[in-house]
Amino acid sequence: MYSMQAIGYVRSPYRETKDIPKGLGAKHEAEGVLEILSEFAAGLADIEGFSHLYVFWLFDRSQGYELTASPPSDNRTHGVFATRSPRRPNAIGLTVVELLRCDGPLLQVRGIDMLDGTPILDIKPYLSSIPAEKLRRGWLAEAEARGKS
Amino acid sequence: MYSMQAIGYVRSPYRETKDIPKGLGAKHEAEGVLEILSEFAAGLADIEGFSHLYVFWLFDRSQGYELTASPPSDNRTHGVFATRSPRRPNAIGLTVVELLRCDGPLLQVRGIDMLDGTPILDIKPYLSSIPAEKLRRGWLAEAEARGKS
Repeated sequence: MYSMQAIGYVRSPYRETKDIPKGLGAKHEAEGVLEILSEFAAGLADIEGFSHLYVFWLFDRSQGYELTASPPSDNRTHGVFATRSPRRPNAIGLTVVELLRCDGPLLQVRGIDMLDGTPILDIKPYLSSIPAEKLRRGWLAEAEARGKS
Repeated sequence: MYSMQAIGYVRSPYRETKDIPKGLGAKHEAEGVLEILSEFAAGLADIEGFSHLYVFWLFDRSQGYELTASPPSDNRTHGVFATRSPRRPNAIGLTVVELLRCDGPLLQVRGIDMLDGTPILDIKPYLSSIPAEKLRRGWLAEAEARGKS
């Protein structure tokens, strides 16, 4: 067992899970703030040079886990590791956000899909991406194709 | 404080940190295996449809943390959250791997940059990417440009 601690908290317009856009074609354009605790703020030096960040966070309002999940984007169940279900063995969430502005320990970002008050575990620069033509998206691409037909 | 548990372990050709390619232009083409513990293997259902996976893992051989880091790709220090330093407040690593083959609880993957025996915390499908023309890479792009001149 490994212990993790919050390095800060998300300030988000979403107060309840039902407020967060989900499923096929959901757009995450919401703006919010990553409030980093003062004791960790020195770790943000030079972060303003990155356009996008990985935010690691905790599904702190999710209870327990299941090994299969029924994502909102499909009517079939899939293994939890083939989904982004919050009910996972380690309830880590990952969001890529666009960094709009830094104001000391407050990072103004776009692309929030977390609830207000969500604990932040880590932030890393988003550096590279897989070219679209090399990417296969498994059941999600199939579910999208079914949704369009 | 939040507790995390290993869902499996990485089988990697890298036994020591010095074996892992680092710095500007480092290529991660090494193949390895994600060995998922049998009690979590049902969570892998349908994962074979994805070409790439996010692997969340623990820098289990890293001790403590510092708020600034000197990455191998630059001779300047940066805030730890603007780097991928292992010495972070929560020692979570993230690697995007290419999924080559599934054999029950064993995922054969390419793109390993973890040490052999590294605990795996989570796996998620890699679904989308930021278009290259929208991506800014901060100090790393600058360090690359300096390295070329």
